[in-house]
Amino acid sequence: MCVDGQMVGTQSIGFREPVSIISGASIVGKKEGEGPLGDKFDLIGEDPMFGTDSWEEAESTLQKETVGLAIAKAKLKNWQIRMIYAGDLLAQSVASSFGIAEFGIPVYGLYGACSTMGEALSLGSMAVAGGYGDYVLAVTSSHFGSAEKEFRFPLAYGNQRPLSATWTVTGSGACVLGQQGGRAKITGLTTGKIIDYGLKDSLNMGACMAPAACDTIYQNFMDFNRMPEDYDKIVTGDLGKVGQQILWDLLAEKGYDISKQHMDCGMEIYDAETQDTHSGGSGCGCAATVFVSYILPRIEAGEWKRVLFVPTGALLSKVSFNEGQSVPGIAHAVVVECAGEGGE
Amino acid sequence: MCVDGQMVGTQSIGFREPVSIISGASIVGKKEGEGPLGDKFDLIGEDPMFGTDSWEEAESTLQKETVGLAIAKAKLKNWQIRMIYAGDLLAQSVASSFGIAEFGIPVYGLYGACSTMGEALSLGSMAVAGGYGDYVLAVTSSHFGSAEKEFRFPLAYGNQRPLSATWTVTGSGACVLGQQGGRAKITGLTTGKIIDYGLKDSLNMGACMAPAACDTIYQNFMDFNRMPEDYDKIVTGDLGKVGQQILWDLLAEKGYDISKQHMDCGMEIYDAETQDTHSGGSGCGCAATVFVSYILPRIEAGEWKRVLFVPTGALLSKVSFNEGQSVPGIAHAVVVECAGEGGE
Repeated sequence: MCVDGQMVGTQSIGFREPVSIISGASIVGKKEGEGPLGDKFDLIGEDPMFGTDSWEEAESTLQKETVGLAIAKAKLKNWQIRMIYAGDLLAQSVASSFGIAEFGIPVYGLYGACSTMGEALSLGSMAVAGGYGDYVLAVTSSHFGSAEKEFRFPLAYGNQRPLSATWTVTGSGACVLGQQGGRAKITGLTTGKIIDYGLKDSLNMGACMAPAACDTIYQNFMDFNRMPEDYDKIVTGDLGKVGQQILWDLLAEKGYDISKQHMDCGMEIYDAETQDTHSGGSGCGCAATVFVSYILPRIEAGEWKRVLFVPTGALLSKVSFNEGQSVPGIAHAVVVECAGEGGE
Repeated sequence: MCVDGQMVGTQSIGFREPVSIISGASIVGKKEGEGPLGDKFDLIGEDPMFGTDSWEEAESTLQKETVGLAIAKAKLKNWQIRMIYAGDLLAQSVASSFGIAEFGIPVYGLYGACSTMGEALSLGSMAVAGGYGDYVLAVTSSHFGSAEKEFRFPLAYGNQRPLSATWTVTGSGACVLGQQGGRAKITGLTTGKIIDYGLKDSLNMGACMAPAACDTIYQNFMDFNRMPEDYDKIVTGDLGKVGQQILWDLLAEKGYDISKQHMDCGMEIYDAETQDTHSGGSGCGCAATVFVSYILPRIEAGEWKRVLFVPTGALLSKVSFNEGQSVPGIAHAVVVECAGEGGE
């Protein structure tokens, strides 16, 4: 590690004692289960309502089940989790509020749009490294039905979507963080700024978020004095095809080529050709489920030694959109490393 | 302090090195300026639109001006603030996203309904105590016009309100936290759980939040082994008259009488008799502005040696309300103490 203190550069944090990712759990919907990562998720829900009567309750149930599974996979009891850091895309974060209430665990509610898993892992790892909890949990969720209702149109309206649009992932991902255990370690963070290029197209969120991803990734390189090749993978959340190209172009202008290392969760979770998902997947659940099911196991296996995980969020509401406001972006970066050949 | 580690009891945190509240700033609307605390706020906006074209932009402007003022009062430059912890009541927290973007400071977006200032001070003080930033900023805002539009009816509809209803405060409060400076210190935290008694009346939010306030205050007493008289004041956010009585009753059932120490920000900010505000003030801006303008100066003056500040939040959205869901509550407690006679 490059740190001699916990503050690194102007915008980053390095942990003297890296924080362990002890377990990860992911539950997704049917469409995600039919995608290229289908065999990697813990559970696939065949019923989009998850046994409930509304999209919002469905998402709450999805998040609740995922949290329970992550705690069980960490071989812990609910009371051992000191705090939950949770968020979703719905107004007033109701999927989280109703999803995790019954665990009886202290909760900090977060909102960072689709960057929320980056925010949850950041704040959760700061808490563990600071000695504020032996175990904390980070979770986010999204649901295609609840997100369409929240941001766009009722599903029954059957609106068409341009090719730049993304498809909100029905899924929830959760990680238990702790002071030891597991081979995947969070070693550093770069907290994102709100970056606004003035773009206003809510059906091209990749373009809205790419400048924020660029800003955070560039700052991570500066703060830790690293180059793209110092990472095995640089994983953004849900830029999609359109956003990916913009990110590459923006970083190229600053002299960095990340095309070899870059991967986008939104481009991994669906087969755009056969699943009609246009630019890719999106939503709080996209980065979270792909991280837990696909990225984390490869780090734990030592296949990837150091990964920069950068969930990306588009900061809009239907009110701000209807009032003609722009869609600023934000991206929070988490450095995850394999603890070494020998494991723990 | 009672701590030998940073975790205290089952749900609290104690800081070995207390975190300084270096500055506080508050800006409110005209109605708040006409209330009993009118001469204590830093600025009073005569124009409810704050020079903008929408309630949401008005609230963003209010929050932006308050953040700038808090930084100026701390005699710092924007770049010296390592992180902002910000939240508001609007869907997808857009008042914060648009309000603070231009500062160019890394941001963590929070959602805890009206408990958000407790959450922001908690996470911000954890960051300072953990060595993750020399200075961080906590801010929340609410606006009567944007909140009515978000949760209830357009103002022009002129709906009537029951006496249990609260009046959303137009205001923003911000604090700069740091490792030293100032006489007011955050010495401990108790993170709240989501508490749901199944109440469903969004026009009686005091009743919905009182059980959460009870749970957090009781747990604070347990974790730190304190009695009500160990605090000069126990200050809830916006329970109002109705919620206050419920809180007193619930704590009395557990054997605690806090009636001598208790104060509610929502009951302080308006004169209910002459200002027609029914049960009291509410909103993210209520606890934040009353804390900054009224509570903090008394701690700094040494008049109150130890205060338990417990902002309370009602977790609902208009969707969850319309779907017949209950209104769970959450409350986060922050222990603020005067550093002593000699100051720094």
